[in-house]
Amino acid sequence: MSAIITLTTDFGLGSPYVAAMKGVILSINPEARLVDLSHAVGPQNVRQGALVLAEATTWFPAGTIHVGVVDPGVGTQRRIVYARIGDQQYIAPDNGLLSRLTLKTRPSQIITVENPEHWLPSVSNTFHGRDIMAPVAAQLSLGMEPDRLGPPLAALVELDWPQPRIESNAIVGEVVWIDGFGNLISNVTEGMLTAIQDRTRATVGIEGHTLRGIDRTYGDRPANTPLALVGSSGYLEVSAAGGSAAATLRCESGARVTVRW
Amino acid sequence: MSAIITLTTDFGLGSPYVAAMKGVILSINPEARLVDLSHAVGPQNVRQGALVLAEATTWFPAGTIHVGVVDPGVGTQRRIVYARIGDQQYIAPDNGLLSRLTLKTRPSQIITVENPEHWLPSVSNTFHGRDIMAPVAAQLSLGMEPDRLGPPLAALVELDWPQPRIESNAIVGEVVWIDGFGNLISNVTEGMLTAIQDRTRATVGIEGHTLRGIDRTYGDRPANTPLALVGSSGYLEVSAAGGSAAATLRCESGARVTVRW
Amino acid sequence: MSAIITLTTDFGLGSPYVAAMKGVILSINPEARLVDLSHAVGPQNVRQGALVLAEATTWFPAGTIHVGVVDPGVGTQRRIVYARIGDQQYIAPDNGLLSRLTLKTRPSQIITVENPEHWLPSVSNTFHGRDIMAPVAAQLSLGMEPDRLGPPLAALVELDWPQPRIESNAIVGEVVWIDGFGNLISNVTEGMLTAIQDRTRATVGIEGHTLRGIDRTYGDRPANTPLALVGSSGYLEVSAAGGSAAATLRCESGARVTVRW
Repeated sequence: MSAIITLTTDFGLGSPYVAAMKGVILSINPEARLVDLSHAVGPQNVRQGALVLAEATTWFPAGTIHVGVVDPGVGTQRRIVYARIGDQQYIAPDNGLLSRLTLKTRPSQIITVENPEHWLPSVSNTFHGRDIMAPVAAQLSLGMEPDRLGPPLAALVELDWPQPRIESNAIVGEVVWIDGFGNLISNVTEGMLTAIQDRTRATVGIEGHTLRGIDRTYGDRPANTPLALVGSSGYLEVSAAGGSAAATLRCESGARVTVRW
Repeated sequence: MSAIITLTTDFGLGSPYVAAMKGVILSINPEARLVDLSHAVGPQNVRQGALVLAEATTWFPAGTIHVGVVDPGVGTQRRIVYARIGDQQYIAPDNGLLSRLTLKTRPSQIITVENPEHWLPSVSNTFHGRDIMAPVAAQLSLGMEPDRLGPPLAALVELDWPQPRIESNAIVGEVVWIDGFGNLISNVTEGMLTAIQDRTRATVGIEGHTLRGIDRTYGDRPANTPLALVGSSGYLEVSAAGGSAAATLRCESGARVTVRW
Repeated sequence: MSAIITLTTDFGLGSPYVAAMKGVILSINPEARLVDLSHAVGPQNVRQGALVLAEATTWFPAGTIHVGVVDPGVGTQRRIVYARIGDQQYIAPDNGLLSRLTLKTRPSQIITVENPEHWLPSVSNTFHGRDIMAPVAAQLSLGMEPDRLGPPLAALVELDWPQPRIESNAIVGEVVWIDGFGNLISNVTEGMLTAIQDRTRATVGIEGHTLRGIDRTYGDRPANTPLALVGSSGYLEVSAAGGSAAATLRCESGARVTVRW
């Protein structure tokens, strides 16, 4: 069976730990199609892993199995879970790693992974990605029913994701993610901006700067001029075409973003 | 159908944007074989992307589909194109990203990608890699004829690539690319060096240093001694075995390289 | 045939050299299943490449073909070898790159790769990964017998790997590898620690610090507190949950690690 399994970890690029997981999966299902989703999540940064999974996984074919390993609690009492969210399947520690996805879509099935029958025969205390999650994902890719992994669970661990404050003529949000271009992606959604009648007259304030108008795309302003637009994931972002808005505005995650009109 | 699709972007390693493109492609053609060509092209560095595509893509099986997304003009009037160059196929913005390839080989077919029938139903202004190029590549991998993408185009946008100046006893070129080892790769080709009768007596000048002789391989000199040789892509390069020539010679792209004999 | 070929190089992430190798392999065997094992080995760092291969490759299905290219001697008299070690197959320069694997398991077959029939028609002096190792791996993946590559060889080049000194109440080892989390992985094995009756009363000394007890997993101590445990590969390691032990203890490869009880 040629199922797709994606891997998202904080192991760092080129880590032999990622390779070990791939080897374990292919040893169980040599036909599994492995896709590296990201291994550049910051070490133990569960929130960043959660954002990456929410941004990328929903684009995959129905039934894709996504393994997420950002797991500072490995070997402690934290659970490992299987969840079906939308038409995708997930295996992850139950530490909030799926909580950005569940903000939008309630899981239709949650299972606690606790039946060792489907794990490697010897399980370390420090690498459940290799010893539990990889073999479980491989078994699922061969068609095993998720309910054989363990008992159902009522709800996943949720993290508190800050929501913008919406006022009559303003929205106050914050930067939640900075991408590889230095674009500052906020938690203000396209939907929240529908209250604005003329976007060219709105302003976006960030770190003491005020940007005039919400533009359509990067090329709408001269090179390296900060501008605001709604990015490809449906969130307001602040960019600087041909440069890095993060560097130009000296801005980090958590910076306040204020839209006024 | 098990066609090969390669991806080259400036999104950065581990970017969820790359993963989104993979998800879109696999949703349309679950059997597509995805190969990460490079995601380490410098942000918006069209020239570097062009060099990577020229260096790597010609080694692939005939008919491989290469998607290149270094696209600072996304959402503006720049075109997206399909091109057949040699026996390879390319989907890219028409901004010079294919112009290092076309230096050597004229495209046999160029199509403007403008028929939205084969795109995602909703196209963002800022991520045509995901919304246009990925689905178009996936459709091609399923056997769709390129001429269904849009009308033919006469010529691609070309960039000006500096050519060496060839004199009777000298060639004056420049460093065009620095690889991961710090090797300084010039635009002087093997073919230009055939005028030299005795390569051991030629000199290569770079950044105030003069290297004596053109060597055969890295191990021909003691460790960390700069040397000149013809590299694996057929260009004269300056290296330092066991070290970085770029660091040792404090040299950047654009530095002049003078061969005398 | 759908054989698995893994690639381990020091080319750097996103290098077009890696892509060229993939293109060569897929041109010979379009059905080969390529797995990036690691391209983040330090430039010309044969020891680090050897550690990565030993850590990751044994997890793969029997018969997997692992290509390792950390090859400072390319183009000189160093050999290229095929080796079968355990149930895995390897193609690499004979410079010690397989010597961490052979510490544990004697190769059952070693062949010198010297029959040019299976190489690219034109072989450069500087990139045998692309011109020799990639096509040879692809031919093997199609079912070619290894003994067609060249004559048998009695033994591989071995590197000297430091072994811990074992005393009656102490083991003196050293840090051999630092992973992406900053965990300091030593050469002291789980097996060597069986002499200790009560691990909670043992001490681990490193860089002037003394850690009390050998713990079970990262979460056994408060965040960012250095602790010692046996890691997932069976070696004693020093970690700092939620932080980097390498940074906290200012520790590098080669640092002495002393266990006392």
